[in-house]
Amino acid sequence: MQEELRNTETPQRVMEIMMEKDEFTKWLGIEFISIESGACQLKFKVRKEMLNGFNSIHGGVLFSAADSAFAFACNSYGLLNVALECNISFTRPAFEGQELLLTAKEINKGKTTAIYEVSVVNEEEKLVALFKGVAFNTQKVHG
Amino acid sequence: MQEELRNTETPQRVMEIMMEKDEFTKWLGIEFISIESGACQLKFKVRKEMLNGFNSIHGGVLFSAADSAFAFACNSYGLLNVALECNISFTRPAFEGQELLLTAKEINKGKTTAIYEVSVVNEEEKLVALFKGVAFNTQKVHG
Amino acid sequence: MQEELRNTETPQRVMEIMMEKDEFTKWLGIEFISIESGACQLKFKVRKEMLNGFNSIHGGVLFSAADSAFAFACNSYGLLNVALECNISFTRPAFEGQELLLTAKEINKGKTTAIYEVSVVNEEEKLVALFKGVAFNTQKVHG
Amino acid sequence: MQEELRNTETPQRVMEIMMEKDEFTKWLGIEFISIESGACQLKFKVRKEMLNGFNSIHGGVLFSAADSAFAFACNSYGLLNVALECNISFTRPAFEGQELLLTAKEINKGKTTAIYEVSVVNEEEKLVALFKGVAFNTQKVHG
Repeated sequence: MQEELRNTETPQRVMEIMMEKDEFTKWLGIEFISIESGACQLKFKVRKEMLNGFNSIHGGVLFSAADSAFAFACNSYGLLNVALECNISFTRPAFEGQELLLTAKEINKGKTTAIYEVSVVNEEEKLVALFKGVAFNTQKVHG
Repeated sequence: MQEELRNTETPQRVMEIMMEKDEFTKWLGIEFISIESGACQLKFKVRKEMLNGFNSIHGGVLFSAADSAFAFACNSYGLLNVALECNISFTRPAFEGQELLLTAKEINKGKTTAIYEVSVVNEEEKLVALFKGVAFNTQKVHG
Repeated sequence: MQEELRNTETPQRVMEIMMEKDEFTKWLGIEFISIESGACQLKFKVRKEMLNGFNSIHGGVLFSAADSAFAFACNSYGLLNVALECNISFTRPAFEGQELLLTAKEINKGKTTAIYEVSVVNEEEKLVALFKGVAFNTQKVHG
Repeated sequence: MQEELRNTETPQRVMEIMMEKDEFTKWLGIEFISIESGACQLKFKVRKEMLNGFNSIHGGVLFSAADSAFAFACNSYGLLNVALECNISFTRPAFEGQELLLTAKEINKGKTTAIYEVSVVNEEEKLVALFKGVAFNTQKVHG
């Protein structure tokens, strides 16, 4: 039964199942550009309520968007993955009104763990943050 | 002039200046328990809009709260610090309605960089996440 | 059979089995101060061949000693663990002739993964490096 | 005087100055394939004394080689850089006799800090480890 589900869900369908209840990713206002097995690309616009006390985007919002991209990429195969450990390098501030582009790619995929990298760039294609995440595969099926 | 300001702002006052415009930390609903030089303790309650598609708190929200605690601790001396690199280990899910306690402490403080650790625990004092951040001191004054 | 072995090997015995063939940890000249379930303390002396081009200890040697402490701590239960992801903060240089003390402690232990932290301090108890490692439990037995 | 030196030292010359006294990198048996501003490629062979108790390369040796590649890349501009924070993902074991190829590239370069990524691949071009390092520029000149 689970095996069956795993084989029929497409990356697009898994994303829809996940998004349906993902209140925080909705709050981020994320739009999908593409989703495939082990990878995705998405974008969002920096809003006033995402700023820190220095008038630039809160590091937590950047991390959150990257973490969402990571989650959609590593869950795209249809099995439920959770994040074990993540790190993020902040290289450049981003400001209200800017649109940020996130690209998640698979660095390595093992039986139980996998590594993904997510880049966040601004409209001038300058790097705003670089994220790396280690996923743990629970072997459970979505849906 | 800057020197003067630096000496007169207390950790409590720096936090108030930062919080005044920190829209995202307000969104998180963070309450301060204590703030002193190089350390702080704060708490927040997990709300519905903080959940991911698996009905537990989005990793980005946990990171965000830890990043805020880190920011308040490393800016407490009155000079503006920014995050260079952060990492977070996720050890246990947290759910809607739970109250999480964050404790930020200074691991090391150099002239231009410093390292902080933030623990996030639930009401049973079980570890939910462990965060480490590297701060860069811009030498600029708050206010 | 495996269960039986697991229950009879002590942390001390697992360490001896691991050390017997661990050529690199021998090269580091590591001495054990204590070893118990999920924790250990060890020390080593900085030698000339451990230096980088700036006359201080190579960051790789610090990482290596911390990684060994992490390995002994997470393997102490008798099941073979491997490192998935590690990070290290360098806070202070160390020089030839200094003795460094490493303390590994368990932050969290799940069924398949665990998190350990290792501090490295010099003879004045000043922090030289702080290491965090994520271990994956292969469920195999040592020996 | 310092300005003069900075402008005349090539990445190749900085590497030679660093290597002259870098006892540990010599121990690793590292050979340079290429070195340029902000990047380098090097290789080394896994020897018996680099193994851990499981007959594969010690994680500390992998980190050390990556850390050396990072150091050569970020010091290539002629100003002395030190590592603040590094992380490494281990994806595949490597064994005695294998030759590993390391490629260091610059992700971002600011005035005082920079980020580098180093990949370690085996002879089949499979990823063995992925390293990220944050460098701090001391503004001092080599030589």
